[in-house]
Amino acid sequence: MNRSAIITLAHGSGGQLSHELIEGLFLRHLNNEALAELNDAATVAVPSGQIALTTDSFVVSPLFFPGGDIGRLAVCGTVNDLAVTGAQPKYLCAGLIIEEGLPFETLEQVVVSMAETAREAGVQIVTGDTKVVGRGAADGLFINTTGVGIHPLALGPRRLRPGDVLLVNGTLGDHGIAVLIRREGLSFDAPLVSDCAPLNDLIAALLAACPGDVHCMRDPTRGGLAATLNEWAWSAGVGIEVDEQALPIRETVRSVCELLGFDPLYVANEGKVVIAVAPTAAERALATLRAHPLGRDAAIIGRVAEMHAGRVVLETLFGAHRLLSMPVGELLPRIC
Amino acid sequence: MNRSAIITLAHGSGGQLSHELIEGLFLRHLNNEALAELNDAATVAVPSGQIALTTDSFVVSPLFFPGGDIGRLAVCGTVNDLAVTGAQPKYLCAGLIIEEGLPFETLEQVVVSMAETAREAGVQIVTGDTKVVGRGAADGLFINTTGVGIHPLALGPRRLRPGDVLLVNGTLGDHGIAVLIRREGLSFDAPLVSDCAPLNDLIAALLAACPGDVHCMRDPTRGGLAATLNEWAWSAGVGIEVDEQALPIRETVRSVCELLGFDPLYVANEGKVVIAVAPTAAERALATLRAHPLGRDAAIIGRVAEMHAGRVVLETLFGAHRLLSMPVGELLPRIC
Repeated sequence: MNRSAIITLAHGSGGQLSHELIEGLFLRHLNNEALAELNDAATVAVPSGQIALTTDSFVVSPLFFPGGDIGRLAVCGTVNDLAVTGAQPKYLCAGLIIEEGLPFETLEQVVVSMAETAREAGVQIVTGDTKVVGRGAADGLFINTTGVGIHPLALGPRRLRPGDVLLVNGTLGDHGIAVLIRREGLSFDAPLVSDCAPLNDLIAALLAACPGDVHCMRDPTRGGLAATLNEWAWSAGVGIEVDEQALPIRETVRSVCELLGFDPLYVANEGKVVIAVAPTAAERALATLRAHPLGRDAAIIGRVAEMHAGRVVLETLFGAHRLLSMPVGELLPRIC
Repeated sequence: MNRSAIITLAHGSGGQLSHELIEGLFLRHLNNEALAELNDAATVAVPSGQIALTTDSFVVSPLFFPGGDIGRLAVCGTVNDLAVTGAQPKYLCAGLIIEEGLPFETLEQVVVSMAETAREAGVQIVTGDTKVVGRGAADGLFINTTGVGIHPLALGPRRLRPGDVLLVNGTLGDHGIAVLIRREGLSFDAPLVSDCAPLNDLIAALLAACPGDVHCMRDPTRGGLAATLNEWAWSAGVGIEVDEQALPIRETVRSVCELLGFDPLYVANEGKVVIAVAPTAAERALATLRAHPLGRDAAIIGRVAEMHAGRVVLETLFGAHRLLSMPVGELLPRIC
């Protein structure tokens, strides 16, 4: 096949070139039974009862960054949004919006990365859509992924209880700062890579070790830990206390943040989960996380309190208290 | 609330303004139990067995056109992709990518239109995501909608049989030409509006009237009737014969196409469905379509044949035959 070196408007036309894109790229790398039907909708099996649904668009710039790329990010982000509800991620749908002129090779790298990450997470990409817009009408490539999970649990902020212990599975701020470093062309002695990873296996291990004791989980992406905890405090009407000393943060992230005036607690993560567990299960939860490759740096970082309902309070190194407020404005755009 | 008149990067930050956008706009217009949970994933009920999944991104330009807008289009497009598999559309997920600077009022109009169209189609928008990209990084607004349908039937090209009769529920090319007229600022005596509509009610009536006799359906969007029929001919390895005389096409569409050098059979529709039924059910199917407001101009347009497998043949007004080939290249970009 005399393949075009760049993506053209005709690749999104629904005609001959669309067909070649589907057969020669998507089916080749993502092949599975549901996708191979090439119907307007994929048909997949689910057990009865409830399913979890989530959708997310990815607009990260640049498309490739240390530790990942937009394809890996799109799969991980949606897998993680399902996993934190306690559901088992099963199926993904992918919608690509491509700017005319994107090198075919770039698109192929991204699709290969999506395929590899889907295998790693144990999910199938069962249906998709490709639109091509004219030069200047989009920035390279945007990906929307929607996910279906089965057997969701009734986890969520409404299950938070005073006394619950808060944990995180590792260092904070790695993703946002890794993307920033690449985008700004900065260079540091200690290389920093994004934490971008599918967390469903780690979360399944946690749920198995602490049945009934995990009350709420969330992946602190945009807005970082601060946004997640503020949402919890607001929507559950509880107070949240965080031990600043206990927060795992890499030295590189700390340095870049100090240099550029960011706060790592507001920076996005893509392979982290904040977990609230019953106090009796806290040590078991910590040990389970630390036993998993994606939880080696796990830590207990705080607790749910009755006091200061609706607020997140940071207990600083020096014993003082300061309010960790909801992020206002946009610190780091285009990181996910 | 001192509401911002335009959408800023901060509206997509996951912080305070994101929260206001969700509460003040999305929840206000799209409210339902699953969405109101505001979890990373929505939890919804499905019967056991199979579900249908479909995803589509909408990049239409301009955002508003005669007979619809990007919001209505996004809901209808996904509802129709589910309905043509024989599934009952139930839940939608919506992913919005907004260019910084979009007027808040424009976004609100689109969200209201999505809400109205979802009600019309009997579906719920249960979860969503909003990303904001800098000026020039997208063109106003892109919407991805992913849909979940229940009780899909095993319809599809592989069920096509020689002798099957082909129908369409109304005039061809209205959507693509309506968008083109608006985009180019053309003006015609006979106003033309997009056919953009949810087809699930019409299709449910058809399936009820002809149980077991509907073999394959598809909404001929990008690439028009020609792309749909060519895909069927290819993937089923059958021939398809179309009576040119029988094709319902509005005079305005015909004129614009002649003027600008388009072929209405390659122009997108957004409220049309092509249907293949067993020959004995053809008249019943036609009567059922015509009895529905969205099928008044329904017509029998051709048949599945054993001859010329893999090809679509147009029988012209003068008794000649010509090949209706797969569209190559991009005639009308940004119409859906």
